[in-house]
Amino acid sequence: MNSSPTVVPATLVFPFELVRSELEKVEAAIAAQAKEFEPAIEGYVAYVCKSSGKRIRPALALLTGGATGQMTDDHRKLGVILELVHIASLVHDDIMDGADLRRNLPTAAAKWGNSLSVLLGDVLFAHALELSASYDDNVVSRAIARASRDVCAGEILQTQRRYDLNLSVPDYLKIIEMKTAALFAAATHLGAYLNGCTPAVQEALKNYGLRLGTAYQIYDDCLDLVGDESAAGKTLRTDLAKGKLTLPVLYLLEQATDLQKTKLNRMLLNGEPMDTTILASIADYEGAVERAIKFAKAMLNDARNDLVCLAAGAHQTALIEITGYLDKLLDKCRAVV
Amino acid sequence: MNSSPTVVPATLVFPFELVRSELEKVEAAIAAQAKEFEPAIEGYVAYVCKSSGKRIRPALALLTGGATGQMTDDHRKLGVILELVHIASLVHDDIMDGADLRRNLPTAAAKWGNSLSVLLGDVLFAHALELSASYDDNVVSRAIARASRDVCAGEILQTQRRYDLNLSVPDYLKIIEMKTAALFAAATHLGAYLNGCTPAVQEALKNYGLRLGTAYQIYDDCLDLVGDESAAGKTLRTDLAKGKLTLPVLYLLEQATDLQKTKLNRMLLNGEPMDTTILASIADYEGAVERAIKFAKAMLNDARNDLVCLAAGAHQTALIEITGYLDKLLDKCRAVV
Repeated sequence: MNSSPTVVPATLVFPFELVRSELEKVEAAIAAQAKEFEPAIEGYVAYVCKSSGKRIRPALALLTGGATGQMTDDHRKLGVILELVHIASLVHDDIMDGADLRRNLPTAAAKWGNSLSVLLGDVLFAHALELSASYDDNVVSRAIARASRDVCAGEILQTQRRYDLNLSVPDYLKIIEMKTAALFAAATHLGAYLNGCTPAVQEALKNYGLRLGTAYQIYDDCLDLVGDESAAGKTLRTDLAKGKLTLPVLYLLEQATDLQKTKLNRMLLNGEPMDTTILASIADYEGAVERAIKFAKAMLNDARNDLVCLAAGAHQTALIEITGYLDKLLDKCRAVV
Repeated sequence: MNSSPTVVPATLVFPFELVRSELEKVEAAIAAQAKEFEPAIEGYVAYVCKSSGKRIRPALALLTGGATGQMTDDHRKLGVILELVHIASLVHDDIMDGADLRRNLPTAAAKWGNSLSVLLGDVLFAHALELSASYDDNVVSRAIARASRDVCAGEILQTQRRYDLNLSVPDYLKIIEMKTAALFAAATHLGAYLNGCTPAVQEALKNYGLRLGTAYQIYDDCLDLVGDESAAGKTLRTDLAKGKLTLPVLYLLEQATDLQKTKLNRMLLNGEPMDTTILASIADYEGAVERAIKFAKAMLNDARNDLVCLAAGAHQTALIEITGYLDKLLDKCRAVV
């Protein structure tokens, strides 16, 4: 075990090359959304939209479109909608977390205060829902509203279960499925739906999104525990400080004695600083992280199997490569434990 | 002028008798929505939904339905959706206002903190949008998303223009049209749409809702200035304290000299307590309130004219009576100035 972890992640980037030009169109369309608002509001919207996120959800919508037929204007619009919902949820998250920075820029809450940020998240979300009601039928708007509700409900459940050492692994998985995987699943499900795929194919791609999103969140949770801040480009070691129990910690608790649990509980409630050395002193920390990584890798394997319904081709390969990319990121987490 | 105002409003209630039993069904359906959420979230939703608001928006949806054909399940569902959006916006408003009480009960923000209340408003809103995507076509979900966006954008504009003595009357009217009248208009427009009315009738009823909502907000703004707290059942005299310039104050400013404006500006910025006596010492306060009341009454008259497209009958009469009810409330404001 290495208590001063090396760089995680390295210079890896998501393998979105195949849809790079399509993603640029989505990016331009996201930027153009600001003009849909009153002039006095446009600036706020433009600021939070240009935050240069990874645009994973739009990429999944586009790749699924390409893998099941054509990438159409409908897929690009879906990408815009998914990203707007994601941005809205981040604007609200930053209020709750009291976060000052996101991707090295001041958050909306830090720049303009909580009141404006509550409303800014609301108008972004409402605008996304209005866009989603511009398709021919109701399937997209229903799925987007449902996924949005899941994202927020998942956050509520997570907030409720902070500092709760009785949180079970199934409860944790349910929470991350709602708060993260639901929007991934909406991307892949609707990407297939828009090409008129059979219910079975839509279902398989929805499952791919759910599993990919779940594995991604487990990776993110492991990164918070073992990653390197400058390489990750964000503040780490915040989950335990906030009482957020993630999969590696739950596994650690599972094998801990009552005495060890009591010790961890006291440290959590007192907000005592916690690093990997301390966790390792409580129980088998290395084994717990390894088990979480293995779980996420098994999930990625299942996600790959969800793709067998697709015709072989560049887009199917790209969807597989995303799971491979996450596999590598998980390996890097493993390497530093 | 009377600086210790008598009771406004008295025991008047909205004339919703005609749809009382239908409103009870909507009320039961609103209460039932809580069960659509995860067990751990149900309690929060149930709490904010049982706040016994006046249910004006559902009543407008039902009455418009009755006035243009039948009140159907679709109208009742519309009532539930409109009220959920309204409740979501109140949950977020109470965060921004730091309000502890609403209708004599602790607000969600006071009970559970701001973080949970941000998310609670979000899930309510997302749930309302999901319900609105369960109609046969997209018209309802598009209109509800748009009205929701207007409600929040109107709040942003209002927040931006606090303490701004250059706020014009048209700007004020635009703000209240967005933050209040848009949802009234969605109720009356969609109530007609769901009965397959012609575009002209839908448009006339939308205008009725817009004008009624605008007049209602002007009444509410006058009430804040001249009303009696115990009779109104809410804290009054808060608008000026928060720098919110409403129609009577804008009229007061219009006829104030530069010296008077400077005085008012200084008092506003210093947060000095302001009552009607002080306002009257600045310029013709009584005349300004009277002018605002007259403006709202003219708006109600226009709203009544929007109803000429409807067949005479009990429901048309009830929609007219709502304007008459607001007329009386405005008269009561006038009586205490």
